[in-house]
Amino acid sequence: MKKNDLSSFAELDFERDRRCGFAEFVYGAGKTPEQIAAIMAELAAHGKPVLATRVAPEAAEFVLKKLPEAVHDELARSIMIPARKKVRRPGKVAVICAGTSDLPVAREAVNTLTVCGAENFLIPDCGVAGLHRLLSKLERLRKADIIIAVAGMEGALPSVTAGLVECPVIAVPTSVGYGASLNGITALLAMLNSCASGVTVVNIDNGFGAACAAVRMLSLRSGKSVR
Amino acid sequence: MKKNDLSSFAELDFERDRRCGFAEFVYGAGKTPEQIAAIMAELAAHGKPVLATRVAPEAAEFVLKKLPEAVHDELARSIMIPARKKVRRPGKVAVICAGTSDLPVAREAVNTLTVCGAENFLIPDCGVAGLHRLLSKLERLRKADIIIAVAGMEGALPSVTAGLVECPVIAVPTSVGYGASLNGITALLAMLNSCASGVTVVNIDNGFGAACAAVRMLSLRSGKSVR
Amino acid sequence: MKKNDLSSFAELDFERDRRCGFAEFVYGAGKTPEQIAAIMAELAAHGKPVLATRVAPEAAEFVLKKLPEAVHDELARSIMIPARKKVRRPGKVAVICAGTSDLPVAREAVNTLTVCGAENFLIPDCGVAGLHRLLSKLERLRKADIIIAVAGMEGALPSVTAGLVECPVIAVPTSVGYGASLNGITALLAMLNSCASGVTVVNIDNGFGAACAAVRMLSLRSGKSVR
Amino acid sequence: MKKNDLSSFAELDFERDRRCGFAEFVYGAGKTPEQIAAIMAELAAHGKPVLATRVAPEAAEFVLKKLPEAVHDELARSIMIPARKKVRRPGKVAVICAGTSDLPVAREAVNTLTVCGAENFLIPDCGVAGLHRLLSKLERLRKADIIIAVAGMEGALPSVTAGLVECPVIAVPTSVGYGASLNGITALLAMLNSCASGVTVVNIDNGFGAACAAVRMLSLRSGKSVR
Amino acid sequence: MKKNDLSSFAELDFERDRRCGFAEFVYGAGKTPEQIAAIMAELAAHGKPVLATRVAPEAAEFVLKKLPEAVHDELARSIMIPARKKVRRPGKVAVICAGTSDLPVAREAVNTLTVCGAENFLIPDCGVAGLHRLLSKLERLRKADIIIAVAGMEGALPSVTAGLVECPVIAVPTSVGYGASLNGITALLAMLNSCASGVTVVNIDNGFGAACAAVRMLSLRSGKSVR
Amino acid sequence: MKKNDLSSFAELDFERDRRCGFAEFVYGAGKTPEQIAAIMAELAAHGKPVLATRVAPEAAEFVLKKLPEAVHDELARSIMIPARKKVRRPGKVAVICAGTSDLPVAREAVNTLTVCGAENFLIPDCGVAGLHRLLSKLERLRKADIIIAVAGMEGALPSVTAGLVECPVIAVPTSVGYGASLNGITALLAMLNSCASGVTVVNIDNGFGAACAAVRMLSLRSGKSVR
Amino acid sequence: MKKNDLSSFAELDFERDRRCGFAEFVYGAGKTPEQIAAIMAELAAHGKPVLATRVAPEAAEFVLKKLPEAVHDELARSIMIPARKKVRRPGKVAVICAGTSDLPVAREAVNTLTVCGAENFLIPDCGVAGLHRLLSKLERLRKADIIIAVAGMEGALPSVTAGLVECPVIAVPTSVGYGASLNGITALLAMLNSCASGVTVVNIDNGFGAACAAVRMLSLRSGKSVR
Amino acid sequence: MKKNDLSSFAELDFERDRRCGFAEFVYGAGKTPEQIAAIMAELAAHGKPVLATRVAPEAAEFVLKKLPEAVHDELARSIMIPARKKVRRPGKVAVICAGTSDLPVAREAVNTLTVCGAENFLIPDCGVAGLHRLLSKLERLRKADIIIAVAGMEGALPSVTAGLVECPVIAVPTSVGYGASLNGITALLAMLNSCASGVTVVNIDNGFGAACAAVRMLSLRSGKSVR
Repeated sequence: MKKNDLSSFAELDFERDRRCGFAEFVYGAGKTPEQIAAIMAELAAHGKPVLATRVAPEAAEFVLKKLPEAVHDELARSIMIPARKKVRRPGKVAVICAGTSDLPVAREAVNTLTVCGAENFLIPDCGVAGLHRLLSKLERLRKADIIIAVAGMEGALPSVTAGLVECPVIAVPTSVGYGASLNGITALLAMLNSCASGVTVVNIDNGFGAACAAVRMLSLRSGKSVR
Repeated sequence: MKKNDLSSFAELDFERDRRCGFAEFVYGAGKTPEQIAAIMAELAAHGKPVLATRVAPEAAEFVLKKLPEAVHDELARSIMIPARKKVRRPGKVAVICAGTSDLPVAREAVNTLTVCGAENFLIPDCGVAGLHRLLSKLERLRKADIIIAVAGMEGALPSVTAGLVECPVIAVPTSVGYGASLNGITALLAMLNSCASGVTVVNIDNGFGAACAAVRMLSLRSGKSVR
Repeated sequence: MKKNDLSSFAELDFERDRRCGFAEFVYGAGKTPEQIAAIMAELAAHGKPVLATRVAPEAAEFVLKKLPEAVHDELARSIMIPARKKVRRPGKVAVICAGTSDLPVAREAVNTLTVCGAENFLIPDCGVAGLHRLLSKLERLRKADIIIAVAGMEGALPSVTAGLVECPVIAVPTSVGYGASLNGITALLAMLNSCASGVTVVNIDNGFGAACAAVRMLSLRSGKSVR
Repeated sequence: MKKNDLSSFAELDFERDRRCGFAEFVYGAGKTPEQIAAIMAELAAHGKPVLATRVAPEAAEFVLKKLPEAVHDELARSIMIPARKKVRRPGKVAVICAGTSDLPVAREAVNTLTVCGAENFLIPDCGVAGLHRLLSKLERLRKADIIIAVAGMEGALPSVTAGLVECPVIAVPTSVGYGASLNGITALLAMLNSCASGVTVVNIDNGFGAACAAVRMLSLRSGKSVR
Repeated sequence: MKKNDLSSFAELDFERDRRCGFAEFVYGAGKTPEQIAAIMAELAAHGKPVLATRVAPEAAEFVLKKLPEAVHDELARSIMIPARKKVRRPGKVAVICAGTSDLPVAREAVNTLTVCGAENFLIPDCGVAGLHRLLSKLERLRKADIIIAVAGMEGALPSVTAGLVECPVIAVPTSVGYGASLNGITALLAMLNSCASGVTVVNIDNGFGAACAAVRMLSLRSGKSVR
Repeated sequence: MKKNDLSSFAELDFERDRRCGFAEFVYGAGKTPEQIAAIMAELAAHGKPVLATRVAPEAAEFVLKKLPEAVHDELARSIMIPARKKVRRPGKVAVICAGTSDLPVAREAVNTLTVCGAENFLIPDCGVAGLHRLLSKLERLRKADIIIAVAGMEGALPSVTAGLVECPVIAVPTSVGYGASLNGITALLAMLNSCASGVTVVNIDNGFGAACAAVRMLSLRSGKSVR
Repeated sequence: MKKNDLSSFAELDFERDRRCGFAEFVYGAGKTPEQIAAIMAELAAHGKPVLATRVAPEAAEFVLKKLPEAVHDELARSIMIPARKKVRRPGKVAVICAGTSDLPVAREAVNTLTVCGAENFLIPDCGVAGLHRLLSKLERLRKADIIIAVAGMEGALPSVTAGLVECPVIAVPTSVGYGASLNGITALLAMLNSCASGVTVVNIDNGFGAACAAVRMLSLRSGKSVR
Repeated sequence: MKKNDLSSFAELDFERDRRCGFAEFVYGAGKTPEQIAAIMAELAAHGKPVLATRVAPEAAEFVLKKLPEAVHDELARSIMIPARKKVRRPGKVAVICAGTSDLPVAREAVNTLTVCGAENFLIPDCGVAGLHRLLSKLERLRKADIIIAVAGMEGALPSVTAGLVECPVIAVPTSVGYGASLNGITALLAMLNSCASGVTVVNIDNGFGAACAAVRMLSLRSGKSVR
């Protein structure tokens, strides 16, 4: 039937990993459960590591029935099918988040890194209202190659962190907060105006994008000009 | 002449100090030099402490010629005439600011506090990109009754400060920054979303308003219910 | 199990009361019912006064079952467990609100003050459209050490109030209104631009934050420099 | 020459007074001095009352040289040529403004009313920070048929006024203020959300439009259905 | 019980009709069904005409059960109890709207006018995309004392109308539209910038407020200065 | 010298006319006078028709000295060098504008059409506040193949026009207006929400872009599928 | 009954096809199912081609029961009744979209074109992240008379496309994305700022409007000046 | 004198290079010429590489007189004093920009990279309106370790680039454009919503910040975990 015919709604990009360093992944929002499952199956059939993000609970139920090998992280709304051939990238990524409510976004980053074969660790609830929580982890953070800093509300965590470390800090604003947090716009704006130089920023709640950026950066570990 | 006749453009509120704890002050923007000078002279004639804020350089020149006893702070764009009878309020206010570019706003706060008879001290350039600068002043800050924290860009200074002290923290966003700082809107929004509880906020660049709020708070030092 | 393991999602700050004058409280939005209950139980086990704000009805039901000693204010969406050792702070806080629809926010402030041991009283429905309602309470308001003024729509209540009293006025904009009220942004902006000097502002619907600010201010009653 | 040929840039609407109750007036901003003078001359030649608003100082100089019978209000940036045949409308309009800085807008309203033959009086500096100033004029205001209330900053004046009177209240937000006043957007939004029912609003700094609205309303005094 | 005790959540303003020309009405949004019913009953008991706007369907069901004499307009979400003593104001108000989707707002205006005793008539679906619809009603519109023009999307109806008539035109933007209509902000902004002079504007979807403004204007029909 | 070396700041696209139907033109804002002159000279040397838009007066003076064959439209801030080989496109474009202040934008469209060899005519000052002005030109407008409708303030002109004609209507919002016109954002939003179907919109003040769109549309006159 | 009486809520415009080139269509949002069905029936009875857009699923169910000849496109939320007399317009329109999630909007355009008798074809999922997908279709696209380019997120598809073709490109931003996509505002703004000259834009998610614009443009194919 | 005393306005952070990998640099905006010169002199005296960005022309003149060894890039508004001890970092950074008007921002990035000892090259004017310009440089770009992509208007350049390469792409929005470009907000939003995964973004016109981020990333080339 035409509606289930992949070519009527999608044209998959099987060369993306060769061009960009990671495969095409599935953005689950705005797609029907049938579309998500069909795309995931096709990518898996081509031996790609498979990740679908922002999958609504009802859609997840449908997908998991269709693809029993898939793994579901409910909190992060991610579904994954590990690639048969594991990739292992050099380097280590720290994912830190300001509060408990920021965890779903932090875990989307963790899931993406894991699917891409990038080593990572997660430190939750180290926001700047109790500065000792961040400072006590500083030694561990300085061992990371990249830090992904996730925060909502006033989004101060990346600024404070970047003032203390040398490695890249990728800031992820979250929609956590209310009123004048404007669904994450405030944290986004704050991070773009960080007084600590060299912080870069991704879209609100975009743990996925931060992880992809980290994977791009890890390509520097292998020394491109050598290739 | 009618244009110089005070009643044609202003109705002074000589009872404000009795009602609100501080006299009527002059907001210089949007007023002609003649209007500013006339209002200041009238307030001084009634024995009030006089402060005009946001006085443009050309207006200041005119006013200083008319009122030779006035004192001018060019950086803060304030003009003051000290009251003949000095008031001395209990308590001490710390004014801190994140960067050199925030100094004009911080000094507007200092000037207002001084005119109101509130003891105060100023610590410049202690933004969170170099956290040691703030932490090294912590003991001094903990001795203040109130902290006015002035910052532009991402405006993280009040959050970090309020997580470390017990006293009221009044956050003043400044228009320092560019692009997505949106002339101070970003710092304002960030401060309103502080993850440190109990921070209150005033308008952008409003060192004056922060100082007035501090003066209101100092009234608690005298123990109102006793009165 | 890891998901119920507190350290996997939270790192509690048991020293906050010593540093900031009030304990860590629980922001209920964006947390699962299990997380809320676990954090509240841990805080209570440490003898802290416990307050969870913004708890959705379904989450509240779960929490109340787990923590039978907890008290629920449905209108304000707060859950409280009073501390075993009562604190009693000097001073009195008035909470006033413009209309009936602003009551939930006003009561969040009242609940927070009560948990913190701050004496308080509430005056509902005294908005400026019928000025006599506010003016008739003026004598009572002048006896308060601090006024928390809660209003939606055009948010004029704090301006009018602050012009009549000497004590600190903390303005709380609410999301009450429609269309160009922009979910409280209008009231927020109006309050930040108050023509009455010395009004400070907290985030939209943030009765909790206003109360915390009041508690910080009450620390002035005990005369910090004496310590 | 074509550039001075009126038909190359304007098509005057000589029937507007018959249709709308007032003649076409000249919006000076964005027009060259030559265009302003040519349009004013043409309208005067047709016996219309002539008003140009928002005329920049340099443009005004040019116009006044060309049209020596014109009268200039520098503060309001208006230029007027009274009609030869005076119209006298029934009713009286009060124009009130919150602060000295709002005067230019209030006077644009006064000038427009005067050119239209509507009786009016002006009360400056009666903002709500000192409520006694408004309350002491209440009896006088209650004698007006219409009140035009001009205010910047938080724009609370129309709300408070409309709660006290029965007649129409036309709210004019001004761009007076700074930072979060957003060049008058805050006052505009506040006035649109007035808790006092039946306030209507015009554009920021639009004293002219408020006066035109008042003139439309005065048409009710003559009892339309009788016509 | 306290929750049903009117004084715990409301302080009714029984003098509003004497001061403002119309009684206090009930804004239904953000109030519980019990609160709405209690306030309506109290107003009715004092012989006031009663109108509740923005009453959600479930709340309406509760209220109608408690107050069987009440009348419900489902489309407009209004509930009314006619006053025992009918008022009859001089003058006639036309309510026009651009499209079928704007009808609920137009009918809120009609209901308010009717409760206030103001004669009115409604012309639906006369938007400017088919100009002949408006032009064919022009003669009828010119007999009205006031026109309330309701429109969403680009909100051009009041501009076109006001260019054709002499009476006051009150513009009501609606939230009808999508995308860049920004829930009515676009129509609101457009109406505030009307090129037809003397249009005044109320909040988005505020048919109620437009009607109250019309009632204020109708007071001019009786000739205030005569009183 | 490197700064005057074209390749250090520009890479001209000499194939654009072959690909897109019109040559590369020069956006003058943000370029130095030297850069503008160098690019124009190079394009002219390649036999292209040359148009520079948004050229500031001082830059224009420099360019005209360097390129004596160039023609300057001061009002529109355009500089043109006609191509040696004239192109003549089939079809005719009407450019209409609401008010005198919109003329510069309308003339930028006229200039662009003329440089591209598209026949056009201009009707100024036919805004909807005096509807007869537009209606009296209707017959002439219905003979055009395309209408470019330029308007500021509430931007209603394209809606009203498109409801009366069959041809494409390209709406150009202008920054004419003040306060809530938000420098043309209001007109832009209004045009995007036109209740008349099939209106398309370009950026604020973008007479140039509207003309380019018209040129693209005129390609339909020659019947593409025939080629 | 009055509520089902068409004239109480709508005044149909049966001359629109004669004036504008296409019939009146039904905007389904904000109308009751009964209103939609009644209007569609009336249009069909007059022999018009009938299209209702934005019909919610429950409303669609009602309409389809009332009008069994109607055809439903669930994904696009459109309901159509083909006209008895088929129109066939000259020319061909390509509809392209960036991702699978943009399909509903693209299909609204396709449905509208089909109802209007305009030949069209659809190319899904050719966004710029994998540029080869667009480039491989270039030959096919160059044969179209008009291209409708539909995209969410950063909305770059129309810019890239318009740089490669000569025909008109109508850009349709979609609300696909999250966080800083601001429900399509970002794509809308980006398209309005296209660096490729001559792109025109319609409202967010407005596939319908883009198709109507295309139909207007197709009128050029028949050579208007000949008529 | 106190005003020239560095400690009265700044507290320099001489350990920043040790902590963050690059020294403290001077943000010139909002500082007086005297402050800029004093800070630069102090940093140079400590053997740091010195860079001041956003230095206004008049301030630059003053600084260059005081510090004759300084080098000035007028277009980028940067002033530099090379460090005596040259650092040479591994890796190469490409800076590309969409148009000639984006050059100042691209050169701020180049200057910062050069001061930090990072090898770099610049490709101007390769925006997506003429795609061949970017595609022809692809081989060269694929040899870079990091790409900084600078663009104004719709900001599509980073999306298209990132879809073609594996290395990190840092997007820099510029304020180039007009009207709906909103001074760079549009490009900023577009870049945050890039459909190409793993793009990170810095503030508008922030060539400096992008370069600092690149320097952080280059630290990966040396293999952190080895240290």
